[in-house]
Amino acid sequence: MSELAEAVQALDLVDHHVHGAISTEADDFEQLISESDRPLPDGLSAFDSQLGFAIRRWCAPVLGLEPHVSPEDYLAARRELGTDDVNRRLLHASGIAHYLLETGYAADRILDLDGMSLASGATTDEVVRLESVAQQVAGSGCTAAEFAPRFAEALDERLASAVGTKTVVAYRLGLDFEPQQPSLREVETAAGEWLASGSTDRVSDPVLLRHLIWAGVERRLPLQFHVGFGDPDLRLHRANPLLLTEFIELAEPYGTPLMLLHCYPFHREAGYLAHAYRDVYFDVGLAVNYTGARAAAIVAESLETAPFGKLLFSSDAWGPAELHYLGAHLWRRAITHVLGEFVDAGEWAEADAIRVATMIGRDNARRVYGLSPVA
Amino acid sequence: MSELAEAVQALDLVDHHVHGAISTEADDFEQLISESDRPLPDGLSAFDSQLGFAIRRWCAPVLGLEPHVSPEDYLAARRELGTDDVNRRLLHASGIAHYLLETGYAADRILDLDGMSLASGATTDEVVRLESVAQQVAGSGCTAAEFAPRFAEALDERLASAVGTKTVVAYRLGLDFEPQQPSLREVETAAGEWLASGSTDRVSDPVLLRHLIWAGVERRLPLQFHVGFGDPDLRLHRANPLLLTEFIELAEPYGTPLMLLHCYPFHREAGYLAHAYRDVYFDVGLAVNYTGARAAAIVAESLETAPFGKLLFSSDAWGPAELHYLGAHLWRRAITHVLGEFVDAGEWAEADAIRVATMIGRDNARRVYGLSPVA
Amino acid sequence: MSELAEAVQALDLVDHHVHGAISTEADDFEQLISESDRPLPDGLSAFDSQLGFAIRRWCAPVLGLEPHVSPEDYLAARRELGTDDVNRRLLHASGIAHYLLETGYAADRILDLDGMSLASGATTDEVVRLESVAQQVAGSGCTAAEFAPRFAEALDERLASAVGTKTVVAYRLGLDFEPQQPSLREVETAAGEWLASGSTDRVSDPVLLRHLIWAGVERRLPLQFHVGFGDPDLRLHRANPLLLTEFIELAEPYGTPLMLLHCYPFHREAGYLAHAYRDVYFDVGLAVNYTGARAAAIVAESLETAPFGKLLFSSDAWGPAELHYLGAHLWRRAITHVLGEFVDAGEWAEADAIRVATMIGRDNARRVYGLSPVA
Repeated sequence: MSELAEAVQALDLVDHHVHGAISTEADDFEQLISESDRPLPDGLSAFDSQLGFAIRRWCAPVLGLEPHVSPEDYLAARRELGTDDVNRRLLHASGIAHYLLETGYAADRILDLDGMSLASGATTDEVVRLESVAQQVAGSGCTAAEFAPRFAEALDERLASAVGTKTVVAYRLGLDFEPQQPSLREVETAAGEWLASGSTDRVSDPVLLRHLIWAGVERRLPLQFHVGFGDPDLRLHRANPLLLTEFIELAEPYGTPLMLLHCYPFHREAGYLAHAYRDVYFDVGLAVNYTGARAAAIVAESLETAPFGKLLFSSDAWGPAELHYLGAHLWRRAITHVLGEFVDAGEWAEADAIRVATMIGRDNARRVYGLSPVA
Repeated sequence: MSELAEAVQALDLVDHHVHGAISTEADDFEQLISESDRPLPDGLSAFDSQLGFAIRRWCAPVLGLEPHVSPEDYLAARRELGTDDVNRRLLHASGIAHYLLETGYAADRILDLDGMSLASGATTDEVVRLESVAQQVAGSGCTAAEFAPRFAEALDERLASAVGTKTVVAYRLGLDFEPQQPSLREVETAAGEWLASGSTDRVSDPVLLRHLIWAGVERRLPLQFHVGFGDPDLRLHRANPLLLTEFIELAEPYGTPLMLLHCYPFHREAGYLAHAYRDVYFDVGLAVNYTGARAAAIVAESLETAPFGKLLFSSDAWGPAELHYLGAHLWRRAITHVLGEFVDAGEWAEADAIRVATMIGRDNARRVYGLSPVA
Repeated sequence: MSELAEAVQALDLVDHHVHGAISTEADDFEQLISESDRPLPDGLSAFDSQLGFAIRRWCAPVLGLEPHVSPEDYLAARRELGTDDVNRRLLHASGIAHYLLETGYAADRILDLDGMSLASGATTDEVVRLESVAQQVAGSGCTAAEFAPRFAEALDERLASAVGTKTVVAYRLGLDFEPQQPSLREVETAAGEWLASGSTDRVSDPVLLRHLIWAGVERRLPLQFHVGFGDPDLRLHRANPLLLTEFIELAEPYGTPLMLLHCYPFHREAGYLAHAYRDVYFDVGLAVNYTGARAAAIVAESLETAPFGKLLFSSDAWGPAELHYLGAHLWRRAITHVLGEFVDAGEWAEADAIRVATMIGRDNARRVYGLSPVA
């Protein structure tokens, strides 16, 4: 094994964008290993995909099975072991030492920060979804005029113990939102309409979403944007990160790190933004899991124009701990393969390759989020 | 030779999107091996391209020549053998067992279904181009009020013996057409204007095109869309499959399989749609031929987020039987190379690789189009 | 070493889009090896990038240092040798025999045509930036009515000894400009507003920019367009070459070669345009330098649908002669690797590979720009 491979294997990863492992039975496992909320056509199985093949190949041995076991045998073993044991095995095997958990989606089915710490033995910190805070404030009953100050107060309270914020504006509106910060008067009007609408489950008003985003900018903690690949609740062509260009320029005076998540298939575009703008960072999480045996190609494409200090590791796992494990495992294989090729071709020094892998897998996140090294 | 390579070599392909082989002399051969309707600049030859090199490399031996013969020698041998013999050799060598022929373009120069069966020894079925049916109905003389019922009748008649429909709305309008089904009143008005225009050769009215597409949806047979790479009659940025997203959602209640053809350079976007939406399928036909030695890269990129049951083989050949042969041959080489790398890297089991190649090359088409296995 | 590798190594390149090497001290070297005009975040270095690693790997030996030296040692050696010696070493090592220099940007810091000839021993010819000519005309004092004839006169004078024109409309407006040639009346009105604005440093009026572009078209010399990757002065999604489609069609009667520069990450789109339209050519310059160890991937992707007569070599170097050297060196490595793989896989004949490398590296530029072979 090369020194690079050894170093990557031993690297105590920081997963800067991830959700909790599932806390309930995973009877809908096939649904949980797809980003789609639609069923597959009759006769097809979600196991017949890059992610499905990766689960059978790489997770099976962690559960004590042969590589490439059948889906039926895999699911049977999973049930027999039980969720706790499956979580414990896969989370420990991932080698992720620090999770930055975004807790805003379907929190009732997944482990919270303490649960994840317990199951994984890792450190956990929180990233706060801006839209969730707004929905809680609106749902708790407030007037239009109270919305902005109450949201600010609630956000500050949450951020007292959190390391970053996140927006899902890509799902609610698209990244081609009006980039300017709305006035408080506009916010009050929009809040009034939303509160009067009778349903405050989901904030989707453009003015309110922009207000949340700018509240994130003003807090100066790293602000995560969902970008690119995700579930069909978005319009992928409106989730192209280049659509954020004017917003990025408007936000420059704040110096708030803007973290572009996933980005596939626009990861080259994200790399350009990370090259062009001081505050832009990105990852190819989610895509690594869903492209499986092709993950190295995606990682390679992310290593083009972006400065190496601008790229981060994430799994974007939600639910089955297979996604946490594979996020780490496939990334380790991919980065080792890609950087190893650069070294073998005589282009990079091995020491540089190890340094870059360590930056992406751990040190960039520590620096940008201001994390303490894990003991 | 690996078991995978043997299995792919022996696979009786279903070409789910293809046109007839040329039935006349191919004196304009260089024009026929380009998607462009423009001449090349003086001094350039269409043989100096990936497709041209692939013809000299792979088709030459099928015609009894050395690999890499000069274009002049290749064309001389082609003339000497004659179109019938060239067709017979190349179509048989392709190993394509079942052609789904779209007969709507320049039918006078190419073999029809019976001609293709005879020349190839393969089974043929038909895919009906919706725009051609509309143009025939309009050209046969009808009133504005008669157009919709007469079109429906003509379409049903054609579909009695066909397996799918196709639209070239990407050429006529772009994929950013209004997604909703137009009302019959709107259709009658638009038909009236078209019929009064004096030329019914080419339907390009947005309302009429939408009517044709929705007629295809209502028939519930697989509905093919030209997407991406093609001749300069389209605007490539308006042939991005993501522009179909709202249409795809509106069509969901019908369960009609939506077949995205070619897709290059938007094949990753097509893969996302196939992942996200139950009824979306796609291929990278045409691109495989035109990228030649790079075909494996395109095939690899198509094997990322899409479920393996959603990807199909096609050649999109039209005219020279070199395109039918290379469509199959380059695809076999590409899929063997790409899946072989997954197997060699320890990511996939070889049995899975064989199964996936068989799905893409044959079984997905059989299932979606409801084809009987070929004897 | 293969015959292909030897041939590529010995190839006397024509760099069809490049700027002068720096004529002053390069104290801001880190800034000069980035396309961004923004600083990096504290603690990051521009050396931690593909370009930075390539400089340490490949330029260090040309300056007499070990491969992979530290940035500090590299910069110290650079200072000690002095700009003239660094230029001489790197420019000679590049093997570029003919530079087509675009002199319109920050000319005071870089060598002019004679300076480049002297420093490199190579032949130099000029490409004239249309916007610079317009700004000089406006700055020299003229009326609105005089602008168009004075611009025409100044342009003709410059073109008497130049081989092509260039536009940076991608920076000033985006490639989605109105494609039609404006009327002289419109130009006069727009010129009047510009001249009255008090600042003629930067032409950004849409009508005037279109007038300059069409003046370029009318001159029938190759007309270069900045496309894709560049500094943050552009909006990358508005620098997609597909947005030029209608303009390309309108310009067809003139037969003016349209040279799409850089194109990353839209190089596949550029390849499509070069396939579809007689007058379109393109390169992947700039991207080769900035993607370093990944340059072969970009070059490979540029060799898909485009005819081989439509692709050109360029470095797009500006300033540090490292960029001139690496533009050539990384391209030689990339084309040797990519075409070598085609040969090794049995897809291409080696003689064809050598011929294609020679077309891209030299002969296409000579033919399109009407250059004499260098003695």
